[in-house]
Amino acid sequence: MWQLYQFPLCPFSRKVRLLLGEKGEGYELVRESPWDQRDEFLDMNPAGQTPVLVDKVGGLVLIDSAAICDYLEETIERATMLPGTAAHRAEIRRLAVWFDHKFHDEVVRPLMYERMEKRLVHRLSPDAKALREAMRLANSHLDYVDWLLDHRRWMAGPLFSLADLAAAAHISVADYLGGIDWRGHDRTRHWYAGMKSRPSFRPLLSERMEVVGPPDHYDKVDF
Amino acid sequence: MWQLYQFPLCPFSRKVRLLLGEKGEGYELVRESPWDQRDEFLDMNPAGQTPVLVDKVGGLVLIDSAAICDYLEETIERATMLPGTAAHRAEIRRLAVWFDHKFHDEVVRPLMYERMEKRLVHRLSPDAKALREAMRLANSHLDYVDWLLDHRRWMAGPLFSLADLAAAAHISVADYLGGIDWRGHDRTRHWYAGMKSRPSFRPLLSERMEVVGPPDHYDKVDF
Repeated sequence: MWQLYQFPLCPFSRKVRLLLGEKGEGYELVRESPWDQRDEFLDMNPAGQTPVLVDKVGGLVLIDSAAICDYLEETIERATMLPGTAAHRAEIRRLAVWFDHKFHDEVVRPLMYERMEKRLVHRLSPDAKALREAMRLANSHLDYVDWLLDHRRWMAGPLFSLADLAAAAHISVADYLGGIDWRGHDRTRHWYAGMKSRPSFRPLLSERMEVVGPPDHYDKVDF
Repeated sequence: MWQLYQFPLCPFSRKVRLLLGEKGEGYELVRESPWDQRDEFLDMNPAGQTPVLVDKVGGLVLIDSAAICDYLEETIERATMLPGTAAHRAEIRRLAVWFDHKFHDEVVRPLMYERMEKRLVHRLSPDAKALREAMRLANSHLDYVDWLLDHRRWMAGPLFSLADLAAAAHISVADYLGGIDWRGHDRTRHWYAGMKSRPSFRPLLSERMEVVGPPDHYDKVDF
């Protein structure tokens, strides 16, 4: 049985959980708060970040969400999340990276810092200007996603893929933190409603982070 | 023939060039300065970042260095840079990500901002404190690399891999920008001397970026 070191709002852990869920692979959660910099966790992953996926029986320790997803894709054939040709996979990977880095750096990271980490670790209030800027950038990103979904069935093309999982993971954390204004983004909203109703996604929506709660619409499939 | 959109000090483009070189795959360089935010480049890659690898004949546009490397690995069998088992590949990928993100964010990005971008774009002088902090972190990273190479023939294990290419790409840019103090890092220095002598690496070492030159030892294999 896999053990996944994570915390409820870690978007990278969410991506891995969605992949494990889609593949029907069992796992148990181990709560890890990377900001605590626990020695045992740093010994396991010197980068100090979640997620880490551990196979206790085989002694395998997998680190970094992209490396974990590639490992799971290579070793579990069912429900591939990198379908199609090499060119299709390049587009899937481009968009997974888009969400893991660009969307994360511009939207998720500042929202998490202002709304969660500041309160949890530093006992400070969020900065309204930083929150407004993250929400403004979230809106631009959703314009881009609207455009993609105007041209494609799923995020990266005709087939459901890792790009959808990465997008849903990061958007769900931004939504939990009140960073998404859904007005005017019907295409993305429709896609996200579909994501929310998948069995792989539903367990994530019921979990809560201490000190910060989600808006009312967060866990509703019809929102 | 591939066209690679890049600039001489882009570490991600260097990683792709090293991979193309190791595979013996021909390519031509197209100079792109991402900070110019050229419209035609943004149309090609809305993330606005180098590298972009284009196959003019097939009309294929590949974006993001990790997605490009995976594409090249999948389509060109010779000289695999992801050798071994799925677990070996996970370790290769963990370390490629380590350099592409942790080393880049802590060392390469601040060095590039202070020593190159500030002068080139903003006509400002570098901040000595920021440079010192980047060099301090570079030193910690090299301690970690020394430790890895005490236990392994190459960066990620017994076989030469993408982890070596990623490490060499980022370390070479940090070295060009004067951010590496090699004293006390004989293990890493020995490994890096080997990297510098590879045919894939030599063309990179002769190139220069405008406004900022490298230290004397930069292009010497014996340094």
